[in-house]
Amino acid sequence: MNHYGFHKQNLTMLTEFCQFNVASGAFSNGLSDKIAYYDLFFRSIPDEGGFIIAAGLSQVIDYLRNLHFDEEDIEYLRSTQLYSEEFLSFLKDFKFTCDVWVVPEGTPVFPYEPIITVKGPLMQAQFIETMLLLTINHQSLIATKANRIVRAAEGREVYEFGARRSHGMDAALFGSRAAYIGGCAGTTQVLAAKEFAIPFFTTMTHSWVQAFDSEFDAFAAFAKDCPNDCVLLVDTYNTIESGVPNAIRVFNEILKPMGVRPKGIRIDSGDITYLTKKARRMLDEAGYPDCQITVSNSLDEDIIRDMLIQGAKVDSFGVGERLITSASAPVLSGVYKLAAIEEDGQIKPKIKISDNTGKITMPGVKTVWRLMDKTLGKAIADVVTLNGEEIDPSVPYELFDPIHTWKRKRVENFIVRRLLQPIFVGGKCVYSSPTLPEIQRYCASQVHTLWEEVTRFEKPHHYYVDLSKELWQLRQDMLQKFSMQEESL
Amino acid sequence: MNHYGFHKQNLTMLTEFCQFNVASGAFSNGLSDKIAYYDLFFRSIPDEGGFIIAAGLSQVIDYLRNLHFDEEDIEYLRSTQLYSEEFLSFLKDFKFTCDVWVVPEGTPVFPYEPIITVKGPLMQAQFIETMLLLTINHQSLIATKANRIVRAAEGREVYEFGARRSHGMDAALFGSRAAYIGGCAGTTQVLAAKEFAIPFFTTMTHSWVQAFDSEFDAFAAFAKDCPNDCVLLVDTYNTIESGVPNAIRVFNEILKPMGVRPKGIRIDSGDITYLTKKARRMLDEAGYPDCQITVSNSLDEDIIRDMLIQGAKVDSFGVGERLITSASAPVLSGVYKLAAIEEDGQIKPKIKISDNTGKITMPGVKTVWRLMDKTLGKAIADVVTLNGEEIDPSVPYELFDPIHTWKRKRVENFIVRRLLQPIFVGGKCVYSSPTLPEIQRYCASQVHTLWEEVTRFEKPHHYYVDLSKELWQLRQDMLQKFSMQEESL
Repeated sequence: MNHYGFHKQNLTMLTEFCQFNVASGAFSNGLSDKIAYYDLFFRSIPDEGGFIIAAGLSQVIDYLRNLHFDEEDIEYLRSTQLYSEEFLSFLKDFKFTCDVWVVPEGTPVFPYEPIITVKGPLMQAQFIETMLLLTINHQSLIATKANRIVRAAEGREVYEFGARRSHGMDAALFGSRAAYIGGCAGTTQVLAAKEFAIPFFTTMTHSWVQAFDSEFDAFAAFAKDCPNDCVLLVDTYNTIESGVPNAIRVFNEILKPMGVRPKGIRIDSGDITYLTKKARRMLDEAGYPDCQITVSNSLDEDIIRDMLIQGAKVDSFGVGERLITSASAPVLSGVYKLAAIEEDGQIKPKIKISDNTGKITMPGVKTVWRLMDKTLGKAIADVVTLNGEEIDPSVPYELFDPIHTWKRKRVENFIVRRLLQPIFVGGKCVYSSPTLPEIQRYCASQVHTLWEEVTRFEKPHHYYVDLSKELWQLRQDMLQKFSMQEESL
Repeated sequence: MNHYGFHKQNLTMLTEFCQFNVASGAFSNGLSDKIAYYDLFFRSIPDEGGFIIAAGLSQVIDYLRNLHFDEEDIEYLRSTQLYSEEFLSFLKDFKFTCDVWVVPEGTPVFPYEPIITVKGPLMQAQFIETMLLLTINHQSLIATKANRIVRAAEGREVYEFGARRSHGMDAALFGSRAAYIGGCAGTTQVLAAKEFAIPFFTTMTHSWVQAFDSEFDAFAAFAKDCPNDCVLLVDTYNTIESGVPNAIRVFNEILKPMGVRPKGIRIDSGDITYLTKKARRMLDEAGYPDCQITVSNSLDEDIIRDMLIQGAKVDSFGVGERLITSASAPVLSGVYKLAAIEEDGQIKPKIKISDNTGKITMPGVKTVWRLMDKTLGKAIADVVTLNGEEIDPSVPYELFDPIHTWKRKRVENFIVRRLLQPIFVGGKCVYSSPTLPEIQRYCASQVHTLWEEVTRFEKPHHYYVDLSKELWQLRQDMLQKFSMQEESL
């Protein structure tokens, strides 16, 4: 089913007024059909990490496929008195006709390389900015955070527990999807499990325990009701003095006679490292070394790493608010910028200058290559070239740092692949999305191609994203030309 | 129109598996119809602020009104093999029958006071936890952040610019609504403006400027197309050397002959304090003292306060990512806890103990009173009492600190109001929501009732949320009883 089935099909109005102003201005000035090229790219990596996991592509496809203006939308625009009747008629017949190239979901990507490129009539290519950004920014943010947390858990399962602290329903639903792409084993959320076939994690609530006269009665009733999926929450009163002993009693008195092994216990408060060590010993001594311990309570990758260093006995982690909001870095800085315009059949590169040098854009129609070591299978560098340039892996390739250009590196024995894949051609979708488990596996395999230096949590090595000589020269020339114009003012 | 019109009506499956487990367990144990009381409350205030703005109630109402299980939902639950056929049949006939009391949207609220209380069959009252929390947590978080930013702007308008960095579509749409409640003057987002009739702010994009051969041509075309709503973005190349001079030239050459005064300019990068002072002087000298200066670029309340201290010349602020994600504090800690159960017609208070004292809950069926100074109209304190207790404003009331009980304060000359309003009775909505502008005005008026000490940004005074003697005693007794049980283990 269409992933937007949960929503109204038409998200066209989830945009900003500036997009309509540009569209209307382009229409009045006869620029609507001028062919423009836009790039979506990130400017920085959340949590000062080494890479971003690209995610959200499936939702971008759904959005673009359904792009159109309903009568009600036109009516609303008319009511703003901002736009001409001619323009509103033009919108009525709006049809998306762009070409779109995208880096596949689950790919580790880096700042300043295009991860989406759109070619098409100026008005259309500009108009889709808002939804492209919010979709890709959100899901890539959560996939990236999830991947950090999953890596910190060192092979233990991580479940997404975040629905109740998410930024609204979509943040819960699509956040869960992104967390799964990033490597989470599943979710506690029903809708995400249902819509995306994500594996689910079930447990009980504190209120269940409180609803009974005793913790034992509550555990016993739960065990009778769900013997095969019995994860008991042991911290309602006192984990070690009451919760774990009552759990063991229920395992002995209820599950054992049924011939069922207990699935696990969950601890949601207190000093989890200490409590899990104690609980593990108690469970082992009672004959339940296979009873898993799940922990939750405001976890993130830092706390998990620290807990594991201190020897916490944990089989799986439930991670909520700090995953679903990427709490330590809740903003991903994706932007969408004009790169070129076609004039008289010629591509005219465009640049945005800025006092903030980080905001200067990369001109021209580009593509992105990933160079991989042929023997080790590890990613060496990404290279952004102008479209039409080729990188021939049979001859050595010289990388150079775009700022410190004397820093050079000669690469040999490499294979090369283009990261950007065509997904729309002339407004028609030509891409068949992999399944979510396939995207998850692809993501894990791609993260595995990064050197440890890049995946390090603290001060990772800065992965090379270099420019071809031609692109570097084009950018230098445009900056130079602009700065000369400025002097002549 | 129903605000969830944008969505599928039925959000029933946006919940967690634990809710179904409790529901199924309650069903098997004959507890489904046991009457339970739940409270939703916050544990802390984002950004170490003095108060939270409650928001999201309208969406809670829409959710509760539409609560039901579709055939497709039941099918999915069956496929999990977690639940019995009897339970699934029971869900098919599910009807929401609870009573719900809520603090009106826009009210400043404080930690540990119930802002929603639900009374009803255990299974129902528990089931709605996830959606209540995610809706109230999200919108209250953004309304609170917006209110901080609006107060920092000291009367200048603040526009919500956040769509492209929000955590998905709902975060954009409902975040914009919450920001408006918190005091934003409007939004750049079309869907929020359309669905909630929020005033809009229009501007241009950098790409518009880049699409032309010169900045002047771009400005001129835009001014011709939108003369009455002409806000020119002046930082594409160089704000002072190029952007502002070109804007003035367009005001003189295009707008003046049309008899139109320019609306404004916008600056989106660089050292905004410096640039606005310079731009203001240039605009004034050119005869445009009424041309407004709007600024944007990763603003928040701290940067705005600092800019204004340094004398930045700003008429309005566009605040994006740090508002729409509440970036400095992206998680609101609302929780939903069982407070009591009815047994044989008696109310039996329930408590959750925890090693983290902040996680110990408040037992019993409660209500919340706000005591206001009769002469000054200022809020003195909130008092949580057991339901049935009255606070008589004609006699002095003694407040006492629930932890440091020797701290006492005698209040006289006060009026008192109950914060919790009934919104559902027996599952029927009995509340008619105010309009969004009414909620915004109510919010502003209520924030005005708080002492400056409470609204301070840094280390605000801790507003009193005290307990009645009866409630305090009940809680003490239950804690005492639990600790004695523990010793006897």
